[in-house]
Amino acid sequence: MQFSSKLIESAVEAFASLPGIGRKTALRLVLHLVQQEAEFAEDFANAIATMRKGIQSCSTCHNLSDDRLCTVCQDVRRDKSTICVVQNIRDVMAIEETAQFRGLYHVLGGVISPIEGIGPKDIKIGSLVERAKDEEVKELIMAISPTIEGDTTIFYITKQLQDVDVKVSSIARGVSFGGELEYADGVTLGRSIVARTTYKLD
Amino acid sequence: MQFSSKLIESAVEAFASLPGIGRKTALRLVLHLVQQEAEFAEDFANAIATMRKGIQSCSTCHNLSDDRLCTVCQDVRRDKSTICVVQNIRDVMAIEETAQFRGLYHVLGGVISPIEGIGPKDIKIGSLVERAKDEEVKELIMAISPTIEGDTTIFYITKQLQDVDVKVSSIARGVSFGGELEYADGVTLGRSIVARTTYKLD
Repeated sequence: MQFSSKLIESAVEAFASLPGIGRKTALRLVLHLVQQEAEFAEDFANAIATMRKGIQSCSTCHNLSDDRLCTVCQDVRRDKSTICVVQNIRDVMAIEETAQFRGLYHVLGGVISPIEGIGPKDIKIGSLVERAKDEEVKELIMAISPTIEGDTTIFYITKQLQDVDVKVSSIARGVSFGGELEYADGVTLGRSIVARTTYKLD
Repeated sequence: MQFSSKLIESAVEAFASLPGIGRKTALRLVLHLVQQEAEFAEDFANAIATMRKGIQSCSTCHNLSDDRLCTVCQDVRRDKSTICVVQNIRDVMAIEETAQFRGLYHVLGGVISPIEGIGPKDIKIGSLVERAKDEEVKELIMAISPTIEGDTTIFYITKQLQDVDVKVSSIARGVSFGGELEYADGVTLGRSIVARTTYKLD
């Protein structure tokens, strides 16, 4: 694409450098910004620059945060005895969205993967073990992908915690609630038969 | 969606205010910016802000421009005798892309549309008539949509130019080159039979 303006060109390049945005879409976005009031583009650019400058990693759970401690860790109403261990920030958002979990989080920032050269020291396992040693912490819920890397990570964490008095659990895996059996993938269906739960009559 | 960070939230809002970008896509873009070096987001925001602050309308052809005159109007190699009249900036880009036109442009910024309350004074017809009066200008090529509004606009411009010594032409309309007849829409096919061209044997 040829542009009669260097300014337009560099703005298009900027948008097109983002994932999933091609040059045609980038141009559409830039022309939209040109057609709006100047303040609109200014506010837009400001929101991005301010965000990137101010954003930090929570010193306790490594979640994204505006301050040293994230809003979840700061919240006195949250249950400090349970920590949900996740791979990334998106997982925190997905779980928060459900409003089913009132404990704290620990964002590992990945899983152990020898192929990708990610060892235990490259993700936040050390700080998790430190947190688990706190007497207040009773349970770690692993919400990690059931892949070889995920399982390896859980195994490694469990070994590190063998002398620590804390329960380690995993989120339930199986056929989705409301999911039709015929559409469930074979691995999920097979595992959900092996890992069946018993109805309890009280 | 709930965010543990106000900064993230406002950046997501900023992206989601752009056309065609929903909140999920916006979040993906923001998290991408968070994962890159801080300079990446800074450069991105800068490109947008600088573009919007610096961009202006070319004083001659109303194309987007970095200076008072756009690069097309500034280019001494362009043929100043032919002006291609288009509705918007995107049309200029599309025609430039073809590399088939070496003349100048005139961006009307719309077409006359009584329904939408756009009269001849609301688009750049006055300055087009002034440009056409220049002795150097020999031909105006209308590259305007063949709609009622477009035809009205061309008719109005032609009337304004009745005492001006300039040729007014239109880009060719018909079945696309390489297009199969069976897939051409009825109006195009019908009109292309009426407006057939004769093979000339020299």
